[in-house]
Amino acid sequence: MVKTIEWRDGKVVMIDQRVLPHEESYVVNETPEQVAESIKTMVIRGAPAIGIAAAYGLAQAALQGPSEPLAAKKRFADVCEFMAATRPTAVNLFWAIERMRKLFDDKLLDSVAAAREALLAEAKKIHEDDIASCRAMGKFGAELVPASANILTHCNAGALATGGYGTALGVIRAAQEAGKKVHVLADETRPWLQGARLTTYELAADGIDTTLICDNMAGALMAQGKIDLVVVGADRIAANGDVANKIGTYTVAVLAKENGIPFYVAAPLSTIDRSLPDGTHIAIEQRSPEEVTRVFGKVPIAPDGLPAANPAFDVTPARYITAIITEKGVAKPPSVDSVAGLFG
Amino acid sequence: MVKTIEWRDGKVVMIDQRVLPHEESYVVNETPEQVAESIKTMVIRGAPAIGIAAAYGLAQAALQGPSEPLAAKKRFADVCEFMAATRPTAVNLFWAIERMRKLFDDKLLDSVAAAREALLAEAKKIHEDDIASCRAMGKFGAELVPASANILTHCNAGALATGGYGTALGVIRAAQEAGKKVHVLADETRPWLQGARLTTYELAADGIDTTLICDNMAGALMAQGKIDLVVVGADRIAANGDVANKIGTYTVAVLAKENGIPFYVAAPLSTIDRSLPDGTHIAIEQRSPEEVTRVFGKVPIAPDGLPAANPAFDVTPARYITAIITEKGVAKPPSVDSVAGLFG
Repeated sequence: MVKTIEWRDGKVVMIDQRVLPHEESYVVNETPEQVAESIKTMVIRGAPAIGIAAAYGLAQAALQGPSEPLAAKKRFADVCEFMAATRPTAVNLFWAIERMRKLFDDKLLDSVAAAREALLAEAKKIHEDDIASCRAMGKFGAELVPASANILTHCNAGALATGGYGTALGVIRAAQEAGKKVHVLADETRPWLQGARLTTYELAADGIDTTLICDNMAGALMAQGKIDLVVVGADRIAANGDVANKIGTYTVAVLAKENGIPFYVAAPLSTIDRSLPDGTHIAIEQRSPEEVTRVFGKVPIAPDGLPAANPAFDVTPARYITAIITEKGVAKPPSVDSVAGLFG
Repeated sequence: MVKTIEWRDGKVVMIDQRVLPHEESYVVNETPEQVAESIKTMVIRGAPAIGIAAAYGLAQAALQGPSEPLAAKKRFADVCEFMAATRPTAVNLFWAIERMRKLFDDKLLDSVAAAREALLAEAKKIHEDDIASCRAMGKFGAELVPASANILTHCNAGALATGGYGTALGVIRAAQEAGKKVHVLADETRPWLQGARLTTYELAADGIDTTLICDNMAGALMAQGKIDLVVVGADRIAANGDVANKIGTYTVAVLAKENGIPFYVAAPLSTIDRSLPDGTHIAIEQRSPEEVTRVFGKVPIAPDGLPAANPAFDVTPARYITAIITEKGVAKPPSVDSVAGLFG
């Protein structure tokens, strides 16, 4: 399976997701500033992967920062601030920053050296825990997959979006590992083409049978009985089970409901933002119109200078979601109570 | 307004819709074979425009064919056959061929010269009638548009898809001409990008305010109250009002219904195929996977050799359609009776 992100001798190495699948090149981030830039420009993307990247960037901030405690604290606070400003929707980013910040403040009471050591260990633990979470939600999710299934997924919620293995694609991998016969339909996911470029690339590497479709084809295939279930990831989940995920997810969910097809969301608990009562409170990132008017930011597909909307995410109300699959179990159907129940 | 197709001294001149909006070049079709190839390769597309192109190609067949009646009849039959084999879904193609074939058979009883003259006049009449139909349905449709409206359209059902003025875009043009304030949201319409390339180009030329969106964004915008109505064209309409149109239309219709937004189809009577009781009988063209895996057939967006589905059309059941707008009035809601009523 492809390695999304790796800590290597103080450097944060990421496969460059902007140029996959036609180029396999790596970005070596030597400073927290570079990590932040890589998150912003989508060298790395996917809610869990963004959280891991931020954690490693904050470990760098501690390790490379001043040895004097107050100066170290000041530098760390600055890094937390610009790291948090990279992307607004995926809550795993803020979750990771908060977790690292609390540990830093705590360990700084001992020494800067103790904080440095603890932060690197914590970033590695966030990374390892994420992979373990993906495997756990894969097991829970695989039980929901029939023995033979045509599975639609949107965007990329795979190894490339996480520490490894994937959330939605983790469910698909686990189903295949459990001996089920799966065929994946991958929405191409305009404008950034995560489905066409990343999901198909990942699944091909694992020998999982995959067919690419344009986003506007999923509905017709559902109406023809060619899709048995849908599984997607999430960027932020509100306390009532409303889900923010890649633009187009709401559309897929409405189509699934209309056609009586189960619609599953797979995400770790770190994606659940219990501070928000519902999805209307989730900040939705608006990205550049050029991502829409030009493919790969280069190839123009529309008249120059044309106005274009580019919301990166949408919100799917809980009523369209059959279940939310996490590493701690399944909220089915999603509700304030079933979501709270995941936290034990 | 852009000129889609023109008869010029025996030649059928078409603006090349494969390279718009970045190149304005023309294909000069000197033979019926060339016209058929232009239809097949989508130099020209859009159900009404295909019908007009076929009619001009058949006029060429008569004008250029043998002077001996039996040989002329044989050649004409051959041309009808390969013209009908170009694209399977848009019924206007078969409608135009049938109309031309009947006239040819009829006039051939007089003389080959009479048939030649009649066929050229008939092709020109099909072209002129289509423009008049678009204007008439524009008037009917404009009455359904509120004084200020954000209008979603899918694919290109404009001047470029017709003899001129357009069906769905004709409704929008007529609404603007009637002094209504319209803002168009144009679905880019993957894989061929008719929305991004053609609709935006046409509407910009007419000074109609247009924003480009990816196909997967329409749902979220509807849920946010940013779309007031939808209007699209059609490639074939069954007797009960089921509509075959560009892939993705069904999805837009489901989303509109879910959000309580009117969904209109604008098409001439020549698009209605009364021989089919419902949409399940409409043949859906499957096009090459490379249209999906490569943008413009050139720029790869997915791993090489990846399987991809590429149905060019889908069927929207009549229950999702608020009304069908034709040059003879509006079928609201569409039903066997209201559709039959359009034929007077």
